[in-house]
Amino acid sequence: MRYELYYWPTIQGRGEFIRLALEEAGADYVDVARRGKSGMAAMEKLLEGARLAHPPYAPPFLKAGKDIIAQTALILFYLGPRLNLSPRDEAGRLWAHQLQLTVTDLVVHIHDTHHPVSGWLYYEEQKEPAKRRTADFWRYRVPKFLGYFERVLKHNGGTYMVGRRTSYVDLSMFQIVEGLRYAFPKRMKRFERKVPLLVALHDRVAKRPRVAAYLASDRRIPFSQWGIYRYFKELDG
Amino acid sequence: MRYELYYWPTIQGRGEFIRLALEEAGADYVDVARRGKSGMAAMEKLLEGARLAHPPYAPPFLKAGKDIIAQTALILFYLGPRLNLSPRDEAGRLWAHQLQLTVTDLVVHIHDTHHPVSGWLYYEEQKEPAKRRTADFWRYRVPKFLGYFERVLKHNGGTYMVGRRTSYVDLSMFQIVEGLRYAFPKRMKRFERKVPLLVALHDRVAKRPRVAAYLASDRRIPFSQWGIYRYFKELDG
Repeated sequence: MRYELYYWPTIQGRGEFIRLALEEAGADYVDVARRGKSGMAAMEKLLEGARLAHPPYAPPFLKAGKDIIAQTALILFYLGPRLNLSPRDEAGRLWAHQLQLTVTDLVVHIHDTHHPVSGWLYYEEQKEPAKRRTADFWRYRVPKFLGYFERVLKHNGGTYMVGRRTSYVDLSMFQIVEGLRYAFPKRMKRFERKVPLLVALHDRVAKRPRVAAYLASDRRIPFSQWGIYRYFKELDG
Repeated sequence: MRYELYYWPTIQGRGEFIRLALEEAGADYVDVARRGKSGMAAMEKLLEGARLAHPPYAPPFLKAGKDIIAQTALILFYLGPRLNLSPRDEAGRLWAHQLQLTVTDLVVHIHDTHHPVSGWLYYEEQKEPAKRRTADFWRYRVPKFLGYFERVLKHNGGTYMVGRRTSYVDLSMFQIVEGLRYAFPKRMKRFERKVPLLVALHDRVAKRPRVAAYLASDRRIPFSQWGIYRYFKELDG
C-alpha cells in the first residue's frame, strides 16, 4: 500500500505527527503537496471535494486506496495497526487514541500561545494577549499536560507510553518535547527536570535508526516561524 | 449495562454531547457528579487515578463496566454502536468520528471567543482580546465550520449527517446550533439563512420524543455564564 499524505508543504505542523509514524514504520508514502505546484493543486482539489463521500475539513488528510481520512489523531488511529505502531488489542488501541487526542488538545494550546486572537493576524498584532496566554500556558497547561503524560509513562513502566513497544504516541511525545525546546528554549530547559521520563523517551525516539535518518534528511522540514512551534524571545521569559 | 458519566455537575459543557446521546438512546446511565458531594468526590478520586490503567486527563469520562474512557469524541465513538447511534460499518463509524472530531475543534473556538487568554482569568480580564477573537470567529470560523457541516449534510441527502438514520453527529449539530443561538442570538439569527439544512436538522432533533423530554426535564442543565456558550452583549455585535 502506497499512502498519500496531504499537508502544507512548508511546515511541520500537525502533519509531522503522521510523517514521524510513516517514517518510523518505513512505510511507502508520498508527501503529496511537497511535490511542487501539481502536488498543491491535487491537495486543493481534494479539499474543495464537492464529490467526495467523506470530504476532509482541513489538512492533514491521508489517502489510502479509496479511503480518505482527516484529523491527525484519527489518521494515526487508522495507521496504527497497519504500521505496527499501536497495541493490537482493541482496548489498547482506544487508549493510544485517547492519549493522542490529549496531544491534539495540547497542540492547540501550544499554537495559541503566539496566536491567541486570530490565525489570520500577524503575531505582532496580538503580542500582548500572546504574552499573557504564554504565561498561563507555562503556569497551568504545561505542568498539567506534561505531568499527566509523565505519570502515564511511569505507570506503564517508563519505557513506552502504551503497551510493550514503540507506538505513534511515543513519536508524538518526541515531537512535543522537540517543539517546546525550539519555541521556548529557556522555559523548557527549566521545566524538563520535572518530566525526566518524557525527556529520556524523547532521546530514545530521536536515536531510533529510521527516525534519526529522517531527522537528518531533507524530508524533515526545519522548525520555522510559521508552524505550531514558533520562537519569540519575549515569550520565552 | 449501566453507564456512569462523569462530568462537571453545573454546566452542559462538553459532557452535553454525551448526555444527548445517552438520552436519545434511552440508555441506563448515571450522571455521577450530579449526585451531590459523594458524586463529585467519586469523580475527583478517579481523576487523581494513580492506580487506573487508563487514567482520564479531564472530564468528561465514561465508566462502562471495567472500561474508563475519556475524550468526548472517543466516548461517542465507543458508545455509537452500543447505543445504535452510529453507522454499523467500519468506514461509516470512522467517518462519524471524523466529523465529531471536527465538532471538537469548533467547540474550542466557541469557548475561546470569551476566554482567548486564559480559562483561569475572568472574562472581564480578557474582554478586549475576546472582542477581537469573536470578530475573527464570526468572520472566518463559523462560515468555514458550519458551511462544511452544511455541505456534508446536503451531500448525504439533507436529513442525516451520516448514514440513513439519526447518529450522535446529528445530536451534536443540534447542540452547536442551540448553543450559538444562546451565546450570539443576533449574530446567529443573521447567519442561519446560510445553513438552512443544519437549522432544519436542529429543529427535527429538538422534536425527537426522547430529546424533547430530556430538554424539558431538570436533567438538562440550563445554559449559563459558566459553560462553553456564554452570552455577552458586546460580543454579539
